[in-house]
Amino acid sequence: MGEGGKEIERLVELMARLPGLGPRSARRAVLAMIKKRELVMEPLARALADVAATVRECEVCGNIATGARCAICTDPRRSEAELCVVEDVADLWAMERGASFRGRYHVLGGVLSALDGVGPDELRIPALVNRVEAGGVTEVILALNATVDGQTTAHYIADQLERLPVEVTSLAQGVPVGGELDYLDDGTISAALRARKRF
Amino acid sequence: MGEGGKEIERLVELMARLPGLGPRSARRAVLAMIKKRELVMEPLARALADVAATVRECEVCGNIATGARCAICTDPRRSEAELCVVEDVADLWAMERGASFRGRYHVLGGVLSALDGVGPDELRIPALVNRVEAGGVTEVILALNATVDGQTTAHYIADQLERLPVEVTSLAQGVPVGGELDYLDDGTISAALRARKRF
Repeated sequence: MGEGGKEIERLVELMARLPGLGPRSARRAVLAMIKKRELVMEPLARALADVAATVRECEVCGNIATGARCAICTDPRRSEAELCVVEDVADLWAMERGASFRGRYHVLGGVLSALDGVGPDELRIPALVNRVEAGGVTEVILALNATVDGQTTAHYIADQLERLPVEVTSLAQGVPVGGELDYLDDGTISAALRARKRF
Repeated sequence: MGEGGKEIERLVELMARLPGLGPRSARRAVLAMIKKRELVMEPLARALADVAATVRECEVCGNIATGARCAICTDPRRSEAELCVVEDVADLWAMERGASFRGRYHVLGGVLSALDGVGPDELRIPALVNRVEAGGVTEVILALNATVDGQTTAHYIADQLERLPVEVTSLAQGVPVGGELDYLDDGTISAALRARKRF
């Protein structure tokens, strides 16, 4: 790219480090921003600086927060009795888009993985056990990915919570809304068949 | 996404306006930036603010510049005799990546388009004619896209420059380096055949 000046080269290089962007799309994005300086570039610079200055981890649940506790942990309308365990903040956001869960969350920060050397202490599993021991939680919903590592983690957490007076549930498996059987994998079809219910 | 705080929502919304990013990839990018706050997010905020504060259009060629004239127009090692006409800054960067052209550029800022109502005065065509009239240019290389609008613009510019003592050339058409004939369109094959040369 060369001759756009050092500042622009640096900007392209930084943008290209974001997931989903490579050098080519970073260049396109930077050119588009320069064309819309007042509408996009300046607000984006300010928004990034704002977030970089204020963002932190919620001390209760591990969600992204702008204070000591996140917007969900400080929302009095949300039930403390239901605790939804997710792998990371992206999964928390996905659950919130569903907009049907009105309890609180616990973000693990990953899943157990022998391959990557991630044990229970690398995750926020001890914090989860403490939180449930402190009382007030009646149900822990394991909303972990339906992968081997996700399910291993779910079983490990269920074991840890077994001795506590709390119900442990997990998300239902089945046919996705709008899903076509012909395009589904065999595992999903078997799971949906096993979990069939009266029509 | 909801509960990440207003600042983060605003950031996702702004990121989603960039070309190649949608709401989903913008969320992923924002989460990745938050995870790498010091390595990516803070430098990116600074780089954006820097570029937004300094970037402008080169008064000579229309390239992106951080002063009155761009790095290419102020480079004494580059010949003033050869002038390469491109549609936009992205094309100028593409030419520079080729790294074999050592003249100067003229960025039109678009191509003629009856459909979009773009006439010669919306582009930097009068500025190009003035630049050639001022003297010192011996060759104008038309490096416009091989589209209908690009070629219409090339012909219009050639007409405008006809009365001036300057040679007007255009990029060769042919088989791309590494290109396989079987995957090329018929137009490119015909053009390459017409322009065949002794081996």
